[in-house]
Amino acid sequence: MSFSPLVDRLLESLRVLPGVGPKTAQRMALHLLERDREGGRRLAHIMAEALEEVGYCQRCRTLTEEELCLLCRSTRRDERLLCVVESPADMLAIEEAGGYQGQYFVLHGHLSPLDGIGPEDIGLDQLEARLDEGGIEEVILATNPTVEGEATAHYIAMQLTGSRLRLSRLAYGVPMGGELEYVDGGTLSRAFNGRLPFTGE
Amino acid sequence: MSFSPLVDRLLESLRVLPGVGPKTAQRMALHLLERDREGGRRLAHIMAEALEEVGYCQRCRTLTEEELCLLCRSTRRDERLLCVVESPADMLAIEEAGGYQGQYFVLHGHLSPLDGIGPEDIGLDQLEARLDEGGIEEVILATNPTVEGEATAHYIAMQLTGSRLRLSRLAYGVPMGGELEYVDGGTLSRAFNGRLPFTGE
Ligand SMILES: [Zn+2]
Ligand SMILES: [Zn+2]
Repeated sequence: MSFSPLVDRLLESLRVLPGVGPKTAQRMALHLLERDREGGRRLAHIMAEALEEVGYCQRCRTLTEEELCLLCRSTRRDERLLCVVESPADMLAIEEAGGYQGQYFVLHGHLSPLDGIGPEDIGLDQLEARLDEGGIEEVILATNPTVEGEATAHYIAMQLTGSRLRLSRLAYGVPMGGELEYVDGGTLSRAFNGRLPFTGE
Repeated sequence: MSFSPLVDRLLESLRVLPGVGPKTAQRMALHLLERDREGGRRLAHIMAEALEEVGYCQRCRTLTEEELCLLCRSTRRDERLLCVVESPADMLAIEEAGGYQGQYFVLHGHLSPLDGIGPEDIGLDQLEARLDEGGIEEVILATNPTVEGEATAHYIAMQLTGSRLRLSRLAYGVPMGGELEYVDGGTLSRAFNGRLPFTGE
């Protein structure tokens, strides 16, 4: 390569996107330049605007360009339930699954002493303040089912010992629609230990 | 969804990129917002600049922000060979395969009467002017090995009947019905070396 330094720089920059290698970057750049300049201009504009304007919700810490996110401003959410997740992506996954109608709190990570990530880095002081406001009756610890996620959930649970809050975590088990033989052993044994009475429902 | 209208607009805009569905758009947006704002800002800036500044080389019609592209300005290319391709992506694929050291001419498409795409839409008047300048001894018709690409090559060959130019096409070895930009370098470079006189058959 190549025929143009500026096109080269575009190819290079596109690589910041996750999952985009040299071939995909080339396909994207040439698509925009050859077939969709207007769409590309709009994308560049909104990307710059979002990266400038989007901060964190002052109540739940998810991403938003306002003081409070749309969920925190909604009057149709159950004020008694608070679901603690590691990332906005987890929050979106739960929203897309449907069914949950409570509030959220986003940690933006998990405790990781070796990386120097402590309680204040994941907003636990802010979580405490949020709970002190009152109204919340149950905290659902929906951190990732990983070693770090579990440790973080345990830490939060310990901090809340003595409060009158009900604590819960997501049920572990075999994923719906999955095939048993492809489920990993850890999940399977968790599902076994947590087995429920068969009611035929 | 969702928690933020601006994040929603970003997800929407990312879909202009080829191969990016809702799930990938979400992964990209959250990656930039949560982990690489600086890289994202750079990308937005260069994308806007490239879409504004990059036009077409006045000599070969490939993409460039200058009057002449780097290849056309190079003094190390063989002035006697001209390779006609459908797109800048094809040109890049040939350059990456290595071996070819001549000039290019980019059609930005192929003849397609049903879509109203005629000779002047793919720059054939400009190609004629380019050849009238003299110096070129061989024209390599490297349009895609598709029905439209073949038809376009035949049309150009017919226009050049009676000139003293040698006409050739890429040797097959490139799979019929495939698109040049996805052919591996080895096949492409062998096809180049084995190019044949263009007989119009
Ligand atoms: Zn919020
Ligand atoms: Zn050029």
